[in-house]
Amino acid sequence: MDTATTPQAHLSFEISPDRYRHWKLTFDAPVATLALDVQEDGGLSSEYRLKLNSYDLGVDIELADAIQRIRFEHPEVHAVVITSLKERIFCAGANIFMLRGSSHGWKVNFCKYTNETRLAIEDASEHSGIKFIAAVNGICAGGGYELALACDEILLVDDGNSAVSLPETPLLGVLPGTGGLTRVVDKRKVRRDLADFFGTVAEGVKGKRAVEWRLVDAVYPTSQFKERVEKRAKELAGLSNRPATAPGILLGPLSPHVSPDSVRYSAVSLDIDRDKRVATLIVRGPDQAEPSTPEAVVARGDQFWALRAFRELDDALLRLRINEPLIGTVVVKTEGDSARVLAVDETLVTHADHWLVREIVHFIKRTLKRMELTSRSFFALIEPGSCFAGTLFELALASDRSYMLDDPDRPNTIALSPMNAGPLRMSNGLTRLETRFLAQPEIVREVLAEHEPFDPQAAADAGLVSFAPDDLDWDDEVRLAIEGRAALSPDALTGMEANLRFAGPETMETKIFGRLTAWQNWIFQRPNAVGDKGALTSYGSQSRPEFDFKRT
Amino acid sequence: MDTATTPQAHLSFEISPDRYRHWKLTFDAPVATLALDVQEDGGLSSEYRLKLNSYDLGVDIELADAIQRIRFEHPEVHAVVITSLKERIFCAGANIFMLRGSSHGWKVNFCKYTNETRLAIEDASEHSGIKFIAAVNGICAGGGYELALACDEILLVDDGNSAVSLPETPLLGVLPGTGGLTRVVDKRKVRRDLADFFGTVAEGVKGKRAVEWRLVDAVYPTSQFKERVEKRAKELAGLSNRPATAPGILLGPLSPHVSPDSVRYSAVSLDIDRDKRVATLIVRGPDQAEPSTPEAVVARGDQFWALRAFRELDDALLRLRINEPLIGTVVVKTEGDSARVLAVDETLVTHADHWLVREIVHFIKRTLKRMELTSRSFFALIEPGSCFAGTLFELALASDRSYMLDDPDRPNTIALSPMNAGPLRMSNGLTRLETRFLAQPEIVREVLAEHEPFDPQAAADAGLVSFAPDDLDWDDEVRLAIEGRAALSPDALTGMEANLRFAGPETMETKIFGRLTAWQNWIFQRPNAVGDKGALTSYGSQSRPEFDFKRT
Repeated sequence: MDTATTPQAHLSFEISPDRYRHWKLTFDAPVATLALDVQEDGGLSSEYRLKLNSYDLGVDIELADAIQRIRFEHPEVHAVVITSLKERIFCAGANIFMLRGSSHGWKVNFCKYTNETRLAIEDASEHSGIKFIAAVNGICAGGGYELALACDEILLVDDGNSAVSLPETPLLGVLPGTGGLTRVVDKRKVRRDLADFFGTVAEGVKGKRAVEWRLVDAVYPTSQFKERVEKRAKELAGLSNRPATAPGILLGPLSPHVSPDSVRYSAVSLDIDRDKRVATLIVRGPDQAEPSTPEAVVARGDQFWALRAFRELDDALLRLRINEPLIGTVVVKTEGDSARVLAVDETLVTHADHWLVREIVHFIKRTLKRMELTSRSFFALIEPGSCFAGTLFELALASDRSYMLDDPDRPNTIALSPMNAGPLRMSNGLTRLETRFLAQPEIVREVLAEHEPFDPQAAADAGLVSFAPDDLDWDDEVRLAIEGRAALSPDALTGMEANLRFAGPETMETKIFGRLTAWQNWIFQRPNAVGDKGALTSYGSQSRPEFDFKRT
Repeated sequence: MDTATTPQAHLSFEISPDRYRHWKLTFDAPVATLALDVQEDGGLSSEYRLKLNSYDLGVDIELADAIQRIRFEHPEVHAVVITSLKERIFCAGANIFMLRGSSHGWKVNFCKYTNETRLAIEDASEHSGIKFIAAVNGICAGGGYELALACDEILLVDDGNSAVSLPETPLLGVLPGTGGLTRVVDKRKVRRDLADFFGTVAEGVKGKRAVEWRLVDAVYPTSQFKERVEKRAKELAGLSNRPATAPGILLGPLSPHVSPDSVRYSAVSLDIDRDKRVATLIVRGPDQAEPSTPEAVVARGDQFWALRAFRELDDALLRLRINEPLIGTVVVKTEGDSARVLAVDETLVTHADHWLVREIVHFIKRTLKRMELTSRSFFALIEPGSCFAGTLFELALASDRSYMLDDPDRPNTIALSPMNAGPLRMSNGLTRLETRFLAQPEIVREVLAEHEPFDPQAAADAGLVSFAPDDLDWDDEVRLAIEGRAALSPDALTGMEANLRFAGPETMETKIFGRLTAWQNWIFQRPNAVGDKGALTSYGSQSRPEFDFKRT
């Protein structure tokens, strides 16, 4: 199923507004408008045309970039209206011909990325004081409605025609893949029987019924629609705690050096060993004194280490996911001076209320979540010269295992900071320390109260690292762990990791990635969807799908 | 993949201790011992041999029956020891050759049933005052360890050889399918990095390390093991609030009349329309005055309507799942006198503390959960002459939709009772009314405060039914809904229902059925597990598995 619609060339996730082909981002502070106007011939592959404002990964990369730039470059924006520039069509969802032609892995990665983008919208609403309105000015189907669901409010035009719908099940034999079912019942709290009906009628629901069923927040006649949207956007903007006039910072290009076997950035490098199917990911700590006041952080802008390093890490993780499917294990290392990392943490914690510091912290948080949602095994190796301290120790906590070298001749320590105590919560709503010590929550307090670094034995005794082999055992133990991992079924590992990484409470977010995504992945393998006569295969052709009607 | 190891003959889930082939149930009040001694040639199919105390569905049907009988027939039992009669082997888990030869649907149904049995053990512990000890007196692998995980305590013999393990990922390329991963990190709260290590080493973990990692509660040398288990069982039994000497009631055979297109019981009938792929499930209310005191309920025993009707319903659901995979939609009806149903509810609520009443209520609860975990669409039809009141109204709430006929000439009502207010909680820990009205929790109080029955308009206005068509529209609307459902992809419906039915909080139970099961179903479709060179296919043969190492 690796067909021409799965781009084979290495993909970059970097984009900037001057190169957007599908979104128009305009500003009328405190409101920004993000208007969808998909170029039909602008898909990542020429094998499909992006009709009716349908999207592929390229369209979503622009959307993710726009949200990110609004947060960092435009603190004066306090509300965002997401709408369409096309007549009578808001968005038809993910392009079906793109999906049909994609490999299973591409489908799964595509849905994961679009889910992360929707969650970034909700994160901006919850934490950054930016509210989102979906101004649904036309037909809003499937992924189009799921995009609307990620907004705080959905306003629908009442033109006798425009409806919201999730036609995936009736038309394509698959699920809405971007959180739709979960958000309908869990976020908008639509009654489950009404959601059941809604999820099976291709034409969707419009007008007053859409409001009564809680599928949208309001409907307005065409004549009033624009004005009502503007009014509501201003009202929501008024609730924001963002600064009114602060200048933003520019997110410049990352400009990594990309070779066939490596991606190298200023503070991050990713090296690929194809024979072993192992990548080595190194994050380097600050190599100079970093700014410690908000003003100086603003002045340093995208070159402030904490922002620069995690932007690079985020990009490296995305490239790994899409461009390197055969790499199963990632060895995570750090290099640098722990004291400098902890000094940055001090700045992030002390000035947490400053808008830019807040954005940086939430971006670090999202990047660490992206790591845990990446279906690769992560093994952290903690060696002399590393700087697994505070924020960077989260890399070890986010890994599936950690190994810390215990060599009396070469000091090697880890350290915690207040950044481990709350700001960087996982998808399950807990900190990584809380998740780690579910059985003994008192340990979380004890280790956070320890202001000295932990040597290997102390770290192992406290349960902060998985294993602390001595120098005689280190090479063999680490090598065997990595080689052993590489020999296992990649699918079983993906399932195992998805289950072990998120103990404790579930949130809408973990439901989307756990329950919903897992079911969608199952369906994306089923002949009833993707077989020769499956519904996804048959869509748009003359032939009707033929199902094996056995219920499973 | 429908091979000879998937039994084709219609399967019955009824069994009784005198017919057990694999378990020995013995009593030494207040402790019962349930000892596994699987007969190798006693599988449901002759295509595999149940070596090393491995199990198939038949073994689990006996286990479920034993747990059920201990609850109802033996109130004097306050603790249960689950152990093995085989030398040096506790249980090797689900039989791999059975799994390998099974269709995808059989695998999924098998795992679902075994999960329900494990949850019934935990339900008995939490609600019935029966504590469970896994006395692991030998090798305990995969499903064997998952059975131990369902117990309150795991005691492991320290003989230098006996270990607990989850070898599914390293040996078979699949997940532990019966809640293992979830219970390791969520119930036993094993640290995720240790769980990761544990989940990848086929030989497992034994001795002191197993205790330190929280995988078991204690290890004892062979010489002390029996005595320690007995001592601990007596201690746990001492915590029970079950009666010391009350006589139990006998659970007699259900003796349904089974024809090719129907299963008929005293209060339940299931009729199959194969052409339409629709079943009609009818539950009849009490046809006589039912006992209203605990003593009279005990005297009526298994013929007490509430117990009889739900035992029959439970059996009908299980038969439907396994024997009728092509039936996609179940029309749910009731017949009878609502007042009599409400009178039974009054008895159940008034005497909720009586051991037998308590057992009956929890059994009704489990049966309704079984319905919601059944991958078929349920449409409740509420018509004149029905008795959707109190406990039986839960059938409508558990359905994906409900249709209530609004014919002024033929009165038709529903009614609530205190049984809708708490005793019959869903897998997510909420009542069905709470789940239904997540958006407006005040409605739950309002409808429960209403002591009069609801006519169709009142029921629709209150949101208690999905639709209330009038007599002119009824036939067409219901027919179109059922026909429309039958045309949709059965896989998409399964995924959609699994996502819509459990809004609100997640519990370990919903995690097991949502997250874990969905991932396992996905893996059970993957060539890396079930393809010609997959790990499940290759196990036990000369050839090693060959993986497509792409990570997804």
